[in-house]
Amino acid sequence: MNIQLALDRLSIEEAVSITRKVAPYIDWIEVGTSLIKEFGMESVRSLKRTFPDKKIVADIKTFDNAVYEFELCFSAGADIATVIGAAPLVSIEACLEVANRHGKQVMIDLLNTSKEQLDVLSKYEDVIVCAHLSKDQQERGGENGNSGLHVPSFPGKSVKVAVAGGITIDSFTKIIKEGNPHVVIIGSGITKADNPMDAAKTFYEMANQYKEHNHE
Amino acid sequence: MNIQLALDRLSIEEAVSITRKVAPYIDWIEVGTSLIKEFGMESVRSLKRTFPDKKIVADIKTFDNAVYEFELCFSAGADIATVIGAAPLVSIEACLEVANRHGKQVMIDLLNTSKEQLDVLSKYEDVIVCAHLSKDQQERGGENGNSGLHVPSFPGKSVKVAVAGGITIDSFTKIIKEGNPHVVIIGSGITKADNPMDAAKTFYEMANQYKEHNHE
Repeated sequence: MNIQLALDRLSIEEAVSITRKVAPYIDWIEVGTSLIKEFGMESVRSLKRTFPDKKIVADIKTFDNAVYEFELCFSAGADIATVIGAAPLVSIEACLEVANRHGKQVMIDLLNTSKEQLDVLSKYEDVIVCAHLSKDQQERGGENGNSGLHVPSFPGKSVKVAVAGGITIDSFTKIIKEGNPHVVIIGSGITKADNPMDAAKTFYEMANQYKEHNHE
Repeated sequence: MNIQLALDRLSIEEAVSITRKVAPYIDWIEVGTSLIKEFGMESVRSLKRTFPDKKIVADIKTFDNAVYEFELCFSAGADIATVIGAAPLVSIEACLEVANRHGKQVMIDLLNTSKEQLDVLSKYEDVIVCAHLSKDQQERGGENGNSGLHVPSFPGKSVKVAVAGGITIDSFTKIIKEGNPHVVIIGSGITKADNPMDAAKTFYEMANQYKEHNHE
């Protein structure tokens, strides 16, 4: 299990500063969509430059213009870039091609992806799919606002699963009991904590207890 | 009918330079998703600063975090910002609220929006919906690659229609014959033309002939 720190609604300087404090306790660094849309690829470059040994996830949420956007991310130092599962299939396949060419990875964000689309996506191998309770669903309710987070399963496939969406110590416990996601994405649970380092350390220790218990 | 110049896959300097050449012949300026994701909100600020009298469309393609992203766009000087029609409804409604609060407008991008989602969206008034043949569908084919562009109709509603997707002189003729879209979005048909000014002037004169003929 990897802990992915999601950096959102911050300046690049704040994002770097928080990440410095919590770096020993997290595995992957997500440059959030809000940083990319506010500051562009400089956000990805800064985080990779400061933390060259961490895996950098560019949450670019591609919906079109896939080759261009994924080339931007990988040129800026990203190791993984995200595409929306509800996007046209032709765009998702273009993302997979670019990632494959660079030896990088694709994370498919399943937010608002229909059952039919999910069936098509689940044929892909070597991708990470992200079950995602969105910020707006968390903050404003809405059609899926109360359904909570679950760890989806893709039996018999080499699909890796990520889980995201306002994860707290409580929901983290539920998630690691329910399944064994490859990635747990934590944003404000760390970045908005009174003490981000203590919060990150708590998640880290819980994940390690789980790993020891399950001989990961 | 308004002609919206879409600026994509360019540096901010190139975008400003091309827009200077064609400004007399276009109505709205779209800061493309690729500019926003590559350079952040500085792209929107630069275009608004240089062309304060033009309507600026920030093609931010919001899919989540709607309030934050729409506030970014309007603070940077955008008059219109875009949201993906396939996004969770809670996010689209948040975009409408923010735009309403600022006296600005929302353009809903219908790319890959299902019939069911479209039925829900068509209840909104005072929005612009954009029928969109995506870059990837144009360049790589795919499930909708050959279906071409059509002007959708929303009878009896105050929905305004925009049409986008690799529009050339030929498809422009088809579009203005087929319907009377509020906005026709033209990108590479102008920006990649041998002479962008001549290309923009041709579109402009065709639109004006249409307007005179129809007493617009």
